[in-house]
Amino acid sequence: MEGYRLFLVLLVSALLLGFLSVLFALIWVFHYREGLSWDGGSAEFNWHPVLIITGFVFIQGIAIIVYRLPWTWKCSKLLIKFIHAGLNTIAMILAIVSLVAVFDFHNAKNIPNMYSLHSWIGLAAVIFYTLQLVLGFAVFLLPFAPVSLRASLMPIHIYSGLLIFATVIATALMGFTEKLIFALKNPAYSTSPPEAIFVNTLGLLILIFGALILWMATRPHWKRPPEQNSKIQQPSGGTPEGTEEESTMTDCSNTDKSDVEFNSEAAARKRNLKLDEVGQRSTM
Amino acid sequence: MEGYRLFLVLLVSALLLGFLSVLFALIWVFHYREGLSWDGGSAEFNWHPVLIITGFVFIQGIAIIVYRLPWTWKCSKLLIKFIHAGLNTIAMILAIVSLVAVFDFHNAKNIPNMYSLHSWIGLAAVIFYTLQLVLGFAVFLLPFAPVSLRASLMPIHIYSGLLIFATVIATALMGFTEKLIFALKNPAYSTSPPEAIFVNTLGLLILIFGALILWMATRPHWKRPPEQNSKIQQPSGGTPEGTEEESTMTDCSNTDKSDVEFNSEAAARKRNLKLDEVGQRSTM
Repeated sequence: MEGYRLFLVLLVSALLLGFLSVLFALIWVFHYREGLSWDGGSAEFNWHPVLIITGFVFIQGIAIIVYRLPWTWKCSKLLIKFIHAGLNTIAMILAIVSLVAVFDFHNAKNIPNMYSLHSWIGLAAVIFYTLQLVLGFAVFLLPFAPVSLRASLMPIHIYSGLLIFATVIATALMGFTEKLIFALKNPAYSTSPPEAIFVNTLGLLILIFGALILWMATRPHWKRPPEQNSKIQQPSGGTPEGTEEESTMTDCSNTDKSDVEFNSEAAARKRNLKLDEVGQRSTM
Repeated sequence: MEGYRLFLVLLVSALLLGFLSVLFALIWVFHYREGLSWDGGSAEFNWHPVLIITGFVFIQGIAIIVYRLPWTWKCSKLLIKFIHAGLNTIAMILAIVSLVAVFDFHNAKNIPNMYSLHSWIGLAAVIFYTLQLVLGFAVFLLPFAPVSLRASLMPIHIYSGLLIFATVIATALMGFTEKLIFALKNPAYSTSPPEAIFVNTLGLLILIFGALILWMATRPHWKRPPEQNSKIQQPSGGTPEGTEEESTMTDCSNTDKSDVEFNSEAAARKRNLKLDEVGQRSTM
């Protein structure tokens, strides 16, 4: 992998920033606010920032770059797809629970729902994220979509994913702004009490986390290479993005076996026979 | 150009959204707020959203995609570089004036400066934008930087530009949130008065504008093709991103002359002689 050391530095930095953001969210709600509970009060609202930062920012960020981790390139693409979809599903569930916490809190306190720009964009982000997940599952994981459809949808899938991720971070920054203005009254937000500085810093952390994820996700030379056996099936080389055939590997331990088979014409012919069975899946 | 019709549809949509955003900002400050003036009062503050949306969102967005307009591909790359840098300079000036308006308003009203997350990220965006402009001018417009430096800095320049643009939009959304909470008291923001709905809609407009600009700016097949005479000088074809040599054209009207020269080996040799003189500029 070209620039492996830089990739590692950025990955470790992103992981540190992600963990630190979750830690900051916990410190915010436990040290500065009312902690966590599910009683219709402020402690129920507090699940909202904690779950959004944990799921919708940190886990979504990791899900985005999971294909870029070079030590997973020996594993089956299908396995990594499942990890990608699984992490995104966890993030979606946490985001939805965090919305329930806010609606529950608002209803208990007779605060209107869905009046703020934060709520408009945030709900749109959750809806588009869910659609993206369902569509991604149907097109890229289930074995029914033709390769041409996958190839044409892949750039949209990638762009939408990155756009939703960036929008989620923007929405979180709006949420911090709202919460600090509403919650800090004496002393007010404008007098920069410790909680204001602390949460502003949390905002910077997730912004830099997002910037690192987007950088890693958009470097062409850090892209997962095409599957080896797809090269056998398409000896002219160079398949369009998202169109190479699925590896028959199912986990990382089968890699060596596959590598041995790679040089075997008999194995290649055998795999070609299996094309209808396993080959109609393309890469993410 | 592949997908020319789709490009046109997206471009017209982006322009409409951009104009509509500026119009909404003007309606906001003239219909719902105190209008515009420079007196230390709220009408001075109002320059802030108007200039940010006009310069830092709309003009910056156009500056980003100016290389993608296919009818400019006949023009000298140098000319388009000047337009790119010029539009960004206008955007920077408007952003700085809009900051002065806010600091002036805060100081006149004894409101603290730089306490909010909006102000932290917004000021950082203006500083990084200015750095990006100065560095871009020094490296890509002045004729001193070696081609290798330009090639290695180009991906960073592109990524930073798009990241700053996205961050500016996120910061604007935070600004709308702040202003609506502070300004709407009776009726409050939470009761969704017409101004709240109107400004929330403005937020959606600039978000979609940003999404369209980012889509157009990141489609590889809508990238400006390499200069024609660089192909002559490098007959093996395919120069790395940002390394092809500068066209000797200075404006669009010279295109036909250049096209005639393109097929002339004598002209190619003549241009090769000029390499030291004009060639050490690379594309953006």
